[in-house]
This record gives sequence, structure tokens and C-alpha cells, in this order.
Amino acid sequence: MKLNDRGLLIVISGPSGVGKGTVRKALFAREKHNLEYSVSMTTRKPREGEVDGIDYYFVNRDEFQQRINDGKLLEYAEFVGNYYGTPIDYVENRLVAGKEVVLEIEVQGAMQVREKMPDAVFIFIVPPSKRALRDRITKRATESEEIINQRMEKAEREFNMAHKYDYIVVNDTVENAADRIMAIIRAEHAKTERSIHRYMQMLEVE
Amino acid sequence: MKLNDRGLLIVISGPSGVGKGTVRKALFAREKHNLEYSVSMTTRKPREGEVDGIDYYFVNRDEFQQRINDGKLLEYAEFVGNYYGTPIDYVENRLVAGKEVVLEIEVQGAMQVREKMPDAVFIFIVPPSKRALRDRITKRATESEEIINQRMEKAEREFNMAHKYDYIVVNDTVENAADRIMAIIRAEHAKTERSIHRYMQMLEVE
Repeated sequence: MKLNDRGLLIVISGPSGVGKGTVRKALFAREKHNLEYSVSMTTRKPREGEVDGIDYYFVNRDEFQQRINDGKLLEYAEFVGNYYGTPIDYVENRLVAGKEVVLEIEVQGAMQVREKMPDAVFIFIVPPSKRALRDRITKRATESEEIINQRMEKAEREFNMAHKYDYIVVNDTVENAADRIMAIIRAEHAKTERSIHRYMQMLEVE
Repeated sequence: MKLNDRGLLIVISGPSGVGKGTVRKALFAREKHNLEYSVSMTTRKPREGEVDGIDYYFVNRDEFQQRINDGKLLEYAEFVGNYYGTPIDYVENRLVAGKEVVLEIEVQGAMQVREKMPDAVFIFIVPPSKRALRDRITKRATESEEIINQRMEKAEREFNMAHKYDYIVVNDTVENAADRIMAIIRAEHAKTERSIHRYMQMLEVE
């Protein structure tokens, strides 16, 4: 029995290379969950096998620009000439349906969401140590030492954004990190500010 | 791996008859936990089988009064001529040792704790409905209808204290309520304000 029926918007972010995507996949692989992944919108062309509405909402540049102008994106950014963003109407619709909507986004995007949806839950995933992050980036990358160093520098700048988040979750193991996020979701629903309204209604019934 | 090594002070409270004690016992019956129950101090005489330091710290009235005067009690109250209270030094000692210290106390006491330890976690246990609370009080009580009504009235006054707590936990089933409290403890440790200090230290290590 939940006192808060509305779903939560869960923003999972963190420095580059920390394993946000892996943690997110571990969450969705759980047997019982009420999570829904927020599909992004993009102006880039679909790749082989990508399905509209599942991998991305594929739109043209005019449509995307219109959404920006109308304030209909929770956050957006441009990468190598293409727009990527989160449509606000879809998110709102799923929250009302009681789903916990999960956004897995970069630090810059997360700060935009904070402005539009201050009651979202902001989780910053961090590595257990700098060394662990370097190992992770090195293992993943096929690139040169120089590229690895550039990525580490980017990650180090992003490390300092932690204080802007509600929670810091250590990705020591993927399952531990996922457990912590599930606990955060459960605890957030029990927060007085989210649950007192339903609780007061309950008291009115004899 | 926890970013916050210090234990949390968990204050479990709620309206009379809601089952605070049952929920607390269910928490301590869990296989893996890091909880410690805060033993109260009292001026009442030990009953048969009660052990000093386990059931209560038994002290005389002068000692208790001295502790009040010295501000060495987190909270206290007088019931039928006897003092009951929570010694602050014991609690502090266990928190530093990394234990989650659990206080199960009445609403009045909880508000005193809030003043002395604002960073404690305040959980308000509520029944799933008024009807459920009445059933509970009726089942437990051997008393008359009048006493039951008095208890319900007391509970109804206490219902309104919910907004002073951090979390509202519904005691629909004891295990559900205990699950929610464990999730709250886990989430609270991940809160940025509690974990950023250790996180920043971690970043200093290469």
C-alpha cells in the first residue's frame, strides 16, 4: 500500500564512463519493478534495426526545434549536429499512470530537468575510486592513451557536480548500485511531502 | 560500500496503538541488520526478570533529575510518577561506532529529539485506515468501550503530527512496514548531504 500513487521521475546521471547504462539495465532486469524507461527523441537517422518509439522517437529538425520553442522538452542537447532530448508529455503521462520513469542522462541534461521538474529524484552514480573509473574507461575504450586521458579529465570535471544531486550512489558492484536505487525509490514514496496528501484523505474515511 | 560511516538515529513513532513495537521487533528479527535498540533510562523499580542495561537503565530520581539538568537526555517524560528517558551519551557512542540506533517512542518524545538531533530520521507509523486501528486497539484491549474510545481519541489527535516527520510508513503488514524502514535507512545513507564529505575525500586519492 503506497500513500503516493503518482510515479517518480528518477534521474540517473553521473560522470562519463561510470557505468550509468549498466546500472540502468540491471534495474530493468529485476523481476518485480514498476519502472519505465524514458525514450529519447532525436533528429539523427535511425540505425539498422532501431525502431521508432522504442529506441528513440525519430523526428526531423523542424519538429524538434518546434518542441524546444514550445518548452515541450524536459532537457535537450546537441551532439555532432544532431539533437537529443526528452519529451515532457510522455514523461508526465507515465508518471500520472503511476510508473517510475527513469531517465539516464548526462550531467548537463540533469540540471535542465531540475529546473523543470524540481520534485524529480536526482541520483549521481559515482565510481568507488578514481582508479576504478580509469580501469573502466581503459577497458571499454579502443582508443589511445590521449583519448583516455581526455575522458578522465571530463569525468573529473563532472565529479564536482555531485552536490547538485539528492543522492550519491556508489557503483561498487552493479547489483549493489541497483539495490540502492530501488531503496531510494521506496523511501522517496514514503517521504512525508509526497505522502501526506493521501494520508489526510485516508483519515477522512471512518 | 557506504559513503556515510556514521550510523543513523532512527526515530520510530506514531499514534498510540498503531503497532510501533511490533514493527520494531520485526526489524530486529531480520537476519542481516546493523541496528541497535536504544535502551531507555527509568526511575521505576525493575520488575521480576528485568535486567539493568538490557531492559532499562534503572536509576534513582536524583540521578535522573541531574541528567535532565545537564541536558544529557535526548528526550524524557513522566508517566504515573516515574521518569522515562533516552540517555544521549549512549546513543552518540553507538552512532559513532556506525550503528543505526533505533528509538521507538511516543509522539511527544519524538519532537524533543528533533530539537536535539535534527539530523535524525523521523518515521511516523500509521495504520492503513482508522477502522484498522480501532480493530487493533479493540483486539489488544481487555478494557471497556469507553477506554477504547479514549484511546481512539488520543490516536486521532496524534494522527495530525504526521507532517512533523520525514517519512510516513503504513503498517499494512508488519513485514511491509519493516521493509520500508530498511529502504529508508539505506536511502538516507546515500543522501548527498550525508555522503558528500566521504565522497570528496575519496576523490583526493589518485
